Amino acid sequence: MSHTPASRRAFLAAASAAGGSLLVSRRGAAAAPAPTMDSTLIGTSKWDLDTPALCVDLDRLEGNIATMQARVTKQGIATRPHAKTHKCAAIAKLQLAAGAIGICTAKVSEAEALMDAGVDRLCMTTSNPAVSKIRRAMRLRQRSPHFIQAVDEAQNARDLNDAAKEAGVCADVVIDVAVGTRSGIPAGPDVIALAQLIDRLPHLRLRGMLSYDGGAQHVTGFAERKRRALEAIAPNAELFAQLTKAGHAMEIFSGGGTGTYSVQHLVPGFTDVQVGSYVFMDMQYLAVGGEDGPVYRDFDVSLTVMATMLNNRFPGRLTTDAGAKALTLNQPTAGVIGEPGFSYNAGSDEFGVITFTESAKRYAIGDRLELIVPHCDPAVNLYDRIHAVRKDRVEAVWAIDARGRSQ
Amino acid sequence: MSHTPASRRAFLAAASAAGGSLLVSRRGAAAAPAPTMDSTLIGTSKWDLDTPALCVDLDRLEGNIATMQARVTKQGIATRPHAKTHKCAAIAKLQLAAGAIGICTAKVSEAEALMDAGVDRLCMTTSNPAVSKIRRAMRLRQRSPHFIQAVDEAQNARDLNDAAKEAGVCADVVIDVAVGTRSGIPAGPDVIALAQLIDRLPHLRLRGMLSYDGGAQHVTGFAERKRRALEAIAPNAELFAQLTKAGHAMEIFSGGGTGTYSVQHLVPGFTDVQVGSYVFMDMQYLAVGGEDGPVYRDFDVSLTVMATMLNNRFPGRLTTDAGAKALTLNQPTAGVIGEPGFSYNAGSDEFGVITFTESAKRYAIGDRLELIVPHCDPAVNLYDRIHAVRKDRVEAVWAIDARGRSQ
Repeated sequence: MSHTPASRRAFLAAASAAGGSLLVSRRGAAAAPAPTMDSTLIGTSKWDLDTPALCVDLDRLEGNIATMQARVTKQGIATRPHAKTHKCAAIAKLQLAAGAIGICTAKVSEAEALMDAGVDRLCMTTSNPAVSKIRRAMRLRQRSPHFIQAVDEAQNARDLNDAAKEAGVCADVVIDVAVGTRSGIPAGPDVIALAQLIDRLPHLRLRGMLSYDGGAQHVTGFAERKRRALEAIAPNAELFAQLTKAGHAMEIFSGGGTGTYSVQHLVPGFTDVQVGSYVFMDMQYLAVGGEDGPVYRDFDVSLTVMATMLNNRFPGRLTTDAGAKALTLNQPTAGVIGEPGFSYNAGSDEFGVITFTESAKRYAIGDRLELIVPHCDPAVNLYDRIHAVRKDRVEAVWAIDARGRSQ
Repeated sequence: MSHTPASRRAFLAAASAAGGSLLVSRRGAAAAPAPTMDSTLIGTSKWDLDTPALCVDLDRLEGNIATMQARVTKQGIATRPHAKTHKCAAIAKLQLAAGAIGICTAKVSEAEALMDAGVDRLCMTTSNPAVSKIRRAMRLRQRSPHFIQAVDEAQNARDLNDAAKEAGVCADVVIDVAVGTRSGIPAGPDVIALAQLIDRLPHLRLRGMLSYDGGAQHVTGFAERKRRALEAIAPNAELFAQLTKAGHAMEIFSGGGTGTYSVQHLVPGFTDVQVGSYVFMDMQYLAVGGEDGPVYRDFDVSLTVMATMLNNRFPGRLTTDAGAKALTLNQPTAGVIGEPGFSYNAGSDEFGVITFTESAKRYAIGDRLELIVPHCDPAVNLYDRIHAVRKDRVEAVWAIDARGRSQ
């Protein structure tokens, strides 16, 4: 990823502007009130929370959800947001209330946690490589008729058929067709054979295919990102047409992410985007560039970590209480809102070390800082709860239900 | 950190050798049986666990604890192991049972979790920069007469005195004297003034000082590591002598870590080592070098993550289910036991991508791998529990009590 001090300044400036000029903020929409984990914090200023504290600005979060839904709907496709980003049932419910047709999960334990918290329109985007996990997935299918499972291999499909039979269900499945070389089955005759096998297996029902291009999402520069995303998915689109023509039930053709959401409708047959990071944004997505310039501004930064100054004794250096265990080691490193000249190093597990030559204010021990996280998904995964904040006051404390659910 | 393929091979070979030639393995020692979180897993082979699964080999863990305790005792100092590494009361109890004089914690929420789980000889090695946290610390002091709190500043000492008074206790404190520029107060007249202030404040009782040199622990090469550690702490040792001579109660002079434990007794007045990683070991510590060669073998690798093969379809590449959310992004990257030629990239949040030119076996989807983590502390912090394994069978499942306690 290209990353210069100049762009860092630009996107920190963008992030610290109050409210997002692009976005209309709406209250609550149709979502049911979310459960609150710690009611004693309601009304507390985010600046008074014990730190490190993970916060989400509700006006911005709701704005991001509304913006994504409106834009994608206008393009004639749907959203099926990926919960690997937020792992939070309260946020999944806001996405569904805004019109999402389902919620994606990466791991079966993640799906279990969300279903336990009342989110049942789930699509597992990764195949389960062990029979024990396949059985767990089929227990979820027993609980919800809306559960969809990815498969990417003949033996995996057979194991899933056996588990579905055992569970007394018919498993809705989608084929995970690779884009790149990380996961899924490459577009080609093996996919066609797998679709035919699925149609023959009595306890499986084919619903379509997935084609997520993880590599395209963070390509710097909108034009190049668009070009690479459309080029990489072209063989999959051709395959989708072929499978449809052959009479397979291909109602789903899902993929894309926050970096490519606005171009996915150009893929023939494409039905829905598995967008994740748009709800929060982070330093990585700010840096990938937008259609209108070097800062990606389609969505507003809603996710921040509040930190506290621990040490100001060493010239040109400051130490905070937010290190790798609060922020991860992803690049670009955390941004300090209002301090574009700060370079943040979360290389210590417990401490963040800031180096700087200029500073907007003189910091005392105990002063708070608000940080933009490097990469939202793994940062959120470090916390048990998130403080939902409106106009800097805690309005709710939400469980990060699937935190740590990497199985 | 220097890191070559050759040394990677050497330390993976060392790690995969069955048992540690240096170590004597002992069962249970005097520790009370640890509570088990999920009794259904007892007796399960680690190769059958749902993955990613964090495991600790009990023979090696007990061996590491016994080895550290024996060596440090022989050198005339004590151990006060740091719980930031394991965050696990069951392991802290093993350390105390083996002779540790206390347990260190980095954050107040970490100390709370461990005390809740029955570990009360705690020393908080970081000052609390907010009054709310200082009050939390003093509630811990109310619960345990063995609780010790670091301070590093006059105002912090006054706030702590107020909170101790409010809680009706006398706070035992140690001064955090900096080594390097990350935290603590630099050795010099400010420390002397702080010691005098502490002696005047009626609700504080000075017990000594801390001097942890985080930077020295991972210096590559034993001789250079020793030289730098002893050089960096020299002013602190001089200060310790000065404070003792001036009549302050300096019974504690604590610091050091797994990288420098064997040289800390050379520091005049030094009382105990805050060793952490030695219980587990990791790719980082294997690479720092030992007294006898390029692989640091004083302790044996006890901590591993079990992972599953997800995809084998792309030539020279394999995809597993253990990415950054299971391993962190620390460097050097994870090691695959038995596969010294594998290069492991945990850069995807959910997936690990292995590239290789040679392989000890042909991997099928669903096959398990055993991984050595890049850096044990933040990796353990991703998991709610750890499978305590002996001869590959689960003997207990321990809570990682302070997981995520970064406040």
